[in-house]
Amino acid sequence: MIRATVTGKIWSSRRIETMPTGGYLEVETETGTRLIAFDPLGCAPGEAVLITQGSVAAAYFTDRTAAIDALIIGSIDDETPNKSGKGRKS
Amino acid sequence: MIRATVTGKIWSSRRIETMPTGGYLEVETETGTRLIAFDPLGCAPGEAVLITQGSVAAAYFTDRTAAIDALIIGSIDDETPNKSGKGRKS
Amino acid sequence: MIRATVTGKIWSSRRIETMPTGGYLEVETETGTRLIAFDPLGCAPGEAVLITQGSVAAAYFTDRTAAIDALIIGSIDDETPNKSGKGRKS
Amino acid sequence: MIRATVTGKIWSSRRIETMPTGGYLEVETETGTRLIAFDPLGCAPGEAVLITQGSVAAAYFTDRTAAIDALIIGSIDDETPNKSGKGRKS
Amino acid sequence: MIRATVTGKIWSSRRIETMPTGGYLEVETETGTRLIAFDPLGCAPGEAVLITQGSVAAAYFTDRTAAIDALIIGSIDDETPNKSGKGRKS
Repeated sequence: MIRATVTGKIWSSRRIETMPTGGYLEVETETGTRLIAFDPLGCAPGEAVLITQGSVAAAYFTDRTAAIDALIIGSIDDETPNKSGKGRKS
Repeated sequence: MIRATVTGKIWSSRRIETMPTGGYLEVETETGTRLIAFDPLGCAPGEAVLITQGSVAAAYFTDRTAAIDALIIGSIDDETPNKSGKGRKS
Repeated sequence: MIRATVTGKIWSSRRIETMPTGGYLEVETETGTRLIAFDPLGCAPGEAVLITQGSVAAAYFTDRTAAIDALIIGSIDDETPNKSGKGRKS
Repeated sequence: MIRATVTGKIWSSRRIETMPTGGYLEVETETGTRLIAFDPLGCAPGEAVLITQGSVAAAYFTDRTAAIDALIIGSIDDETPNKSGKGRKS
Repeated sequence: MIRATVTGKIWSSRRIETMPTGGYLEVETETGTRLIAFDPLGCAPGEAVLITQGSVAAAYFTDRTAAIDALIIGSIDDETPNKSGKGRKS
């Protein structure tokens, strides 16, 4: 999995039917890579999240074959230090 | 998923039988990476699209085992700001 | 999928039994990355081809569980402009 | 698989239900890439570990469909030289 | 698939049960990337090998769900020129 920060939300009115309804958040990894992940948790901009990728992301959806390859699976608790070694809980 | 812009279309007259008929669009990501994705939506050059990759792309096709590893799953609505932070809807 | 150019052929006399017999071509992508793909079409050096990767490549083989993760699925027609924007059909 | 070194642990109190309980360790590869892997072995910071990625990581869990795409599958024995060629067992 | 050269062997005494017994070789690709692959062929250091990655590597094992994401599927014959264009058979 990868650690990333939520940077925004995207909307897609014109899309394939099997796309699950819900939040599609744009996230940025520590190396600056950006990707878009389905958000089952309702995360907010700036939140540190844990992302899983590939077919395991699609397997989360039990009611359909979802064309999803990135999924937010958790919000990272504050006391987990990031690269700079500082725990983000002041 | 990744955000990309449609840059063109490719044709492949000589191909394996299980390749679905339809549009094969060339797209460019924000980092300049180019890939080719199957387009079930009829997108146009310059359009911002959402791409899913890997076996989840192939799973979209229920009538065959499609050798497809990249699929356009949606067109990104204009008011979604891209990296420059500007919403593209003036 | 990715666009690549055929640069050569590889031979592997000592290999696992489930490897399908046929052509294993070395290809180079536009960014210079090289990989080896199974070729069901009989492509030639210099030919522009369309490659699919991952488990969807293996799924092409219906008679075995093939340990193949890259497959040539089509030859790209000449009038498809490459990065330089020139259509290769003079 | 890839070789990596354990650099820390992450906690995620707010997460999807199907996430297995257990250790989620942050690891760094030889090229400095960081990722987070599920740890079934109880590894310690500084330990050299072997990581598998993708759907094969999720397949380790037989009691659920786990949204896990990286798994520690072994601790690398000391006498295995790393890139610098030195065996780490003095 | 990718072309790589065997650079060494790794040992992992403390590991998950479903890891197949056999050789785990460290290999280096032409771009210097290093990874570890299961070796069903008994390859030697310096040997040029063909590697398949992802779930197709795990599918090679029919007796278990193997947490393997990289597999040596063949030894590349000498007369296959590498990037420098020289056939390695003098």
